[in-house]
Amino acid sequence: MALQPSRTVAELRQLQERTGDEAGAQRVCWTPTWLRAREWLSERLAALPGVEEEIDEAGNQWATLPGRSPASLLIGGHLDSVPDGGWLDGCLNVLAGLEVLRRLAEEQPPPLTVRLVSWADEEGARFGRSLFGSSAASGTMEVELLRGLKDRDGVSLPEALASCGADLDRAGGAARRLEGAAAYLELHIEQGPVLERLDLPLGVVLGTFGVERHAVRYLGQSAHAGSTPMDARRDAFAAAARLALEVRDIARREGGVGTVGRVVTRPGIVTAIAGECEITIDQRAIDAPTLSRMLEQTQAASRRIADEEGVRVAWERVWRIDPLLFNTQLMEICAEAVSETAGRVHFLPSGPLHDAAEMVRAGVPTAMIFVQSLNGLSHTKREDTRPAHLELAVRALDDAVRRALVWADDQPALK
Amino acid sequence: MALQPSRTVAELRQLQERTGDEAGAQRVCWTPTWLRAREWLSERLAALPGVEEEIDEAGNQWATLPGRSPASLLIGGHLDSVPDGGWLDGCLNVLAGLEVLRRLAEEQPPPLTVRLVSWADEEGARFGRSLFGSSAASGTMEVELLRGLKDRDGVSLPEALASCGADLDRAGGAARRLEGAAAYLELHIEQGPVLERLDLPLGVVLGTFGVERHAVRYLGQSAHAGSTPMDARRDAFAAAARLALEVRDIARREGGVGTVGRVVTRPGIVTAIAGECEITIDQRAIDAPTLSRMLEQTQAASRRIADEEGVRVAWERVWRIDPLLFNTQLMEICAEAVSETAGRVHFLPSGPLHDAAEMVRAGVPTAMIFVQSLNGLSHTKREDTRPAHLELAVRALDDAVRRALVWADDQPALK
Repeated sequence: MALQPSRTVAELRQLQERTGDEAGAQRVCWTPTWLRAREWLSERLAALPGVEEEIDEAGNQWATLPGRSPASLLIGGHLDSVPDGGWLDGCLNVLAGLEVLRRLAEEQPPPLTVRLVSWADEEGARFGRSLFGSSAASGTMEVELLRGLKDRDGVSLPEALASCGADLDRAGGAARRLEGAAAYLELHIEQGPVLERLDLPLGVVLGTFGVERHAVRYLGQSAHAGSTPMDARRDAFAAAARLALEVRDIARREGGVGTVGRVVTRPGIVTAIAGECEITIDQRAIDAPTLSRMLEQTQAASRRIADEEGVRVAWERVWRIDPLLFNTQLMEICAEAVSETAGRVHFLPSGPLHDAAEMVRAGVPTAMIFVQSLNGLSHTKREDTRPAHLELAVRALDDAVRRALVWADDQPALK
Repeated sequence: MALQPSRTVAELRQLQERTGDEAGAQRVCWTPTWLRAREWLSERLAALPGVEEEIDEAGNQWATLPGRSPASLLIGGHLDSVPDGGWLDGCLNVLAGLEVLRRLAEEQPPPLTVRLVSWADEEGARFGRSLFGSSAASGTMEVELLRGLKDRDGVSLPEALASCGADLDRAGGAARRLEGAAAYLELHIEQGPVLERLDLPLGVVLGTFGVERHAVRYLGQSAHAGSTPMDARRDAFAAAARLALEVRDIARREGGVGTVGRVVTRPGIVTAIAGECEITIDQRAIDAPTLSRMLEQTQAASRRIADEEGVRVAWERVWRIDPLLFNTQLMEICAEAVSETAGRVHFLPSGPLHDAAEMVRAGVPTAMIFVQSLNGLSHTKREDTRPAHLELAVRALDDAVRRALVWADDQPALK
């Protein structure tokens, strides 16, 4: 029985029927619906000869096909979704990996041990911390910060984990599965419009953007909208509006992306000049010097605007992460697989983070393949990809695994 | 006993002590605190020989000193405040008028009947409808719209009125007190920075700004802040930020004021481009053609920006009122009183509305005097005016009343 990419598309639809509703996918991690998805995957894994399944201390679900070498190749994805999510984000990788594992289980033993991993809580939808399971494995998880997190109903993260058989204090034990990992491959929908605009089904990912995320607050003077002449105003929102447009200009000039997604004015009423305005700024770039320049230029612009508008400005860093570049040899392997499967090869960075980023941080050679998203939409039930492109994506992942096994088997360090 | 302006300052402080707290004035209309202020005024009126007090169907409090003619001169103000309000907004007019009435009661009878009116619910702080009592008197009140209004605790406007002895269905009866009204004078704090910047204690008001108030909504496409290149965005907030800056430029160019005070982005999160952004636009000018031009230019700019940004724009009118110009002869009389009291005369428009605007709409010859506000602040406990300026204001009002009585007595139509 050879690879059957159409089966992956059918299984994706079946999973959506079982764990979604009219509003979209509902596989939020640490919920009964997510557990149902995990059991659904278990049933399929149980049918594969020689494949052993286990759940680790962080809630990650592993399926291992032993090879001639204990060194391993990992294929990763995640079954969890955001609330009202799409039918592909995360689970495409898992189900495509399942199909590849089926093919390998027939031809066993492979030269290296092959592990399919379904990471726990990639989205962080319930507790606000994404990449949970993969960061437990990579060792970057900040346990003490996580211990205090609560969902909107007051349930703590440790309690939610316990209800699913996971354990925050022992989550770091997930790292054992990375011992001897020679390569990590992940297939994902692009979640952006680039491949569609290029009319390409597949792309090879260069790495994940570095991110600088800040809250910027302007403080002016609230005053009556009718009685305050234009030249006597200290309008915090006018300053913020100018800065938001600067953020955009800077991103265009530097080749990154920059977004002001949240804006709050105070007092926030029609008859009052805003005395206070807070905006969020999210800036991303694939290389660290560009990202630094974008941030510096934005900070300088914010101060210049503050001076000109007679207001004060305060910055607070919300979060940051360095750009994480993928392994060039594995990227080349992915490019060969994409070329073989779909013709022309295009390299593109990933704006969103993925579990693959944690594998880079863990020192595992890593690469990703993107498949085209329609209309650039994700995290909504309108997320979609053509079935023909999904099938190409399964073929490309399979081809990349085949090539990566040969490549890894040739690595002297693994011998 | 001659006019004692220092008594007005002392009474303002006493009223603040009795009806305010550490957060500011709390005389929100239709509340026990407002009723306490009304009773406090009643006690003072009861001490004036020949003055009759009554509360009309709309809750307005009238004190009448009969003159040689039934034709009347009105002095108006309001005791109600916003929550956490200032110690002067509205009640300065009432207490200055009380002091003028004391002087007139000694010298009675005046040539015309003189009425001091404390309007009910000028601020509209509890039910969102300002100028309640004066619009009942002017006949512009929309009773059916008001009937359905509820406060944040679910109490309806008619219920709140009834608890204070007023009656929405009979509120129009307040109009009877305007019969034979020959002039209406109102003293108010400026609530803006103009007089302070000119170093003038007093000013003569030209009229109240016309107002165009709109909600403008841009509809773009929400998308991931990381995965969507800058040239593939349809960012509703970027469009709104550009329009807000246009509103400002247009107001500067045309000599009016324009404010974007409230901004809401959706989904309103740091990692998403805003697919939707709603802003409020408040535009004001003292003459109707200017206001029309400002609105037209803003609407044109909003459409041009929508085209350039690839988003849609929708306008919804929230409220509008025409500019209302005061009576030129009464303005001249106020100018003479200001000149006599404080020297240099400056004419300025009023950005905020006042009960005086309803008197213009009722066809009563109307004028206002402004006294300087410190730092342009109002509707906050930080609202303030120098005591010396308050005393000058009482003198100017008294002088204007004196002159207006002579002027009105000379009007042939009143004979």
